[in-house]
Amino acid sequence: MASTSQANGTHAAPSTKGYDPTFTKRVIESMGPKTDPRLRTVLTSLITHIHDFAREVDLTVDEWIAGVELVNWAGQMSTDRRNEGQLLCDVIGLESLVDEITYKKAAEAGNLATQSAILGPFFRHDHPTREMGESITFNTPADGEVAYMHGRVLDAVTKDPIANATIDVWEASTNGLYEQQDEEQVEHNLRGKFITGNDGEYSYYCLRPTPYPVPFDGPAGKLLKLTDRHPYRPAHIHLMVLADGYKPITTQVFDVKSKYLEDDSVFAVKDALLIDFKPREGDEKAKLEVHYDLALVPL
Amino acid sequence: MASTSQANGTHAAPSTKGYDPTFTKRVIESMGPKTDPRLRTVLTSLITHIHDFAREVDLTVDEWIAGVELVNWAGQMSTDRRNEGQLLCDVIGLESLVDEITYKKAAEAGNLATQSAILGPFFRHDHPTREMGESITFNTPADGEVAYMHGRVLDAVTKDPIANATIDVWEASTNGLYEQQDEEQVEHNLRGKFITGNDGEYSYYCLRPTPYPVPFDGPAGKLLKLTDRHPYRPAHIHLMVLADGYKPITTQVFDVKSKYLEDDSVFAVKDALLIDFKPREGDEKAKLEVHYDLALVPL
Repeated sequence: MASTSQANGTHAAPSTKGYDPTFTKRVIESMGPKTDPRLRTVLTSLITHIHDFAREVDLTVDEWIAGVELVNWAGQMSTDRRNEGQLLCDVIGLESLVDEITYKKAAEAGNLATQSAILGPFFRHDHPTREMGESITFNTPADGEVAYMHGRVLDAVTKDPIANATIDVWEASTNGLYEQQDEEQVEHNLRGKFITGNDGEYSYYCLRPTPYPVPFDGPAGKLLKLTDRHPYRPAHIHLMVLADGYKPITTQVFDVKSKYLEDDSVFAVKDALLIDFKPREGDEKAKLEVHYDLALVPL
Repeated sequence: MASTSQANGTHAAPSTKGYDPTFTKRVIESMGPKTDPRLRTVLTSLITHIHDFAREVDLTVDEWIAGVELVNWAGQMSTDRRNEGQLLCDVIGLESLVDEITYKKAAEAGNLATQSAILGPFFRHDHPTREMGESITFNTPADGEVAYMHGRVLDAVTKDPIANATIDVWEASTNGLYEQQDEEQVEHNLRGKFITGNDGEYSYYCLRPTPYPVPFDGPAGKLLKLTDRHPYRPAHIHLMVLADGYKPITTQVFDVKSKYLEDDSVFAVKDALLIDFKPREGDEKAKLEVHYDLALVPL
């Protein structure tokens, strides 16, 4: 691999390799005085890195055009139900990295909160509020295992329960599809919003999640195929937790027994987010249960 | 500007700033053994630089999503008559840089060829072949100045004329629009293909070009507005020259008296590509003329 950069944080100084050494500076300096300072910082770094990349690999016009076509294709496939630009970022680890950066900045106030994970492209803003303890599985498939998931929403500092916290939960069915991808599922199947009482407890019946491939028919799939990678994600449940006076959390919890924990196609797994499904006795609605507490850092 | 990189070719070693130092390595190593070696080289560099960028500026989820939306929008606006992904690259200098890289690689065989410039998004593959000396302006606007452009296609090494060379020419009208953007222009207006005879001479009547803005209604326009930049390109004529046994050339020639030579919105101007329109005597078809020889390097 002919690269002057290394991924471990050390970085050989790239030269401009005989290419015009003033070019990148000229592009950056074309930004006018009314440019927002943060945007200037972000674009200065982005333009520098993209130009350094092109010089480093002696990027050809044909290779660049292939990249432009891939990106245009991503936009053309994106709809209100699908975000292929986001998925392209996901398969090169960018959403997980940005999540790590955002989480680390949040954690500087205290390292006790539940860790975050990427939002992914299947969140919806209109989850119906359900009664605590209700089920979110309305089209339970024959190969599905129902599980009782419960725990508490806690103040990460005091460990006190948080009342009126909102928990959004969403997951795919065993066919690998979220309800908005699948005409066989009723609307809002495997989704719901739950609001805690004074005890901070939450609970619902859900499906034990199963691994599934990210959509493979667009540019992200093409990139995965070209780089000899599989599209699978390990079994996971998405959670978003909001409470007044606390930093919100977007995360995913992963079945510790799932395949693909080591090679998630979007690089989202963290050890602190592993959950363990155990047999549940005396409940005709579920043969499995899993316990997971969620801790929020005060603002 | 808080950037650890500089545009002049020196580059402070970026650290991973406390973020997971193994993350980028893991993403790169996810590429399987069947990955094409060149693709692996290109993606290793691209992923490293994009991750370094995100860490360097502490890119937030909101900023990343804004970028995804800009890129998806580019794809959604792109059609067979418009390539907004390409234009986004152009306004951050990437097409010009890739052109420089490709030109430099070609020039290693000899530094005598006519310099190249970017193709731009308005080339068509179906230019009609015209008789040498014919006009390409069929809807000459009231404010248009017709010019006689001529010169020779030469072997860059021997200086001998090249016969059977093909010259594609295309330019915008004085309203800033190419014919495929403008229902008021006949098809193939201000375009043509000319084939040289044994003397290597080429000639045609064209419009003296005028500055125009790149399309301003999409994501490239949004980026220009956000960075307090104008969208104008200096007056130019596009040329593509092909001949058997020679390296092809894609270039643009720029009116030396044009505005925006110093601040072309797509960074394509080179000194060697300046042309000077002069008064033409005794030709009722044109009051101006310009001479420019085109030199090709043998394969």
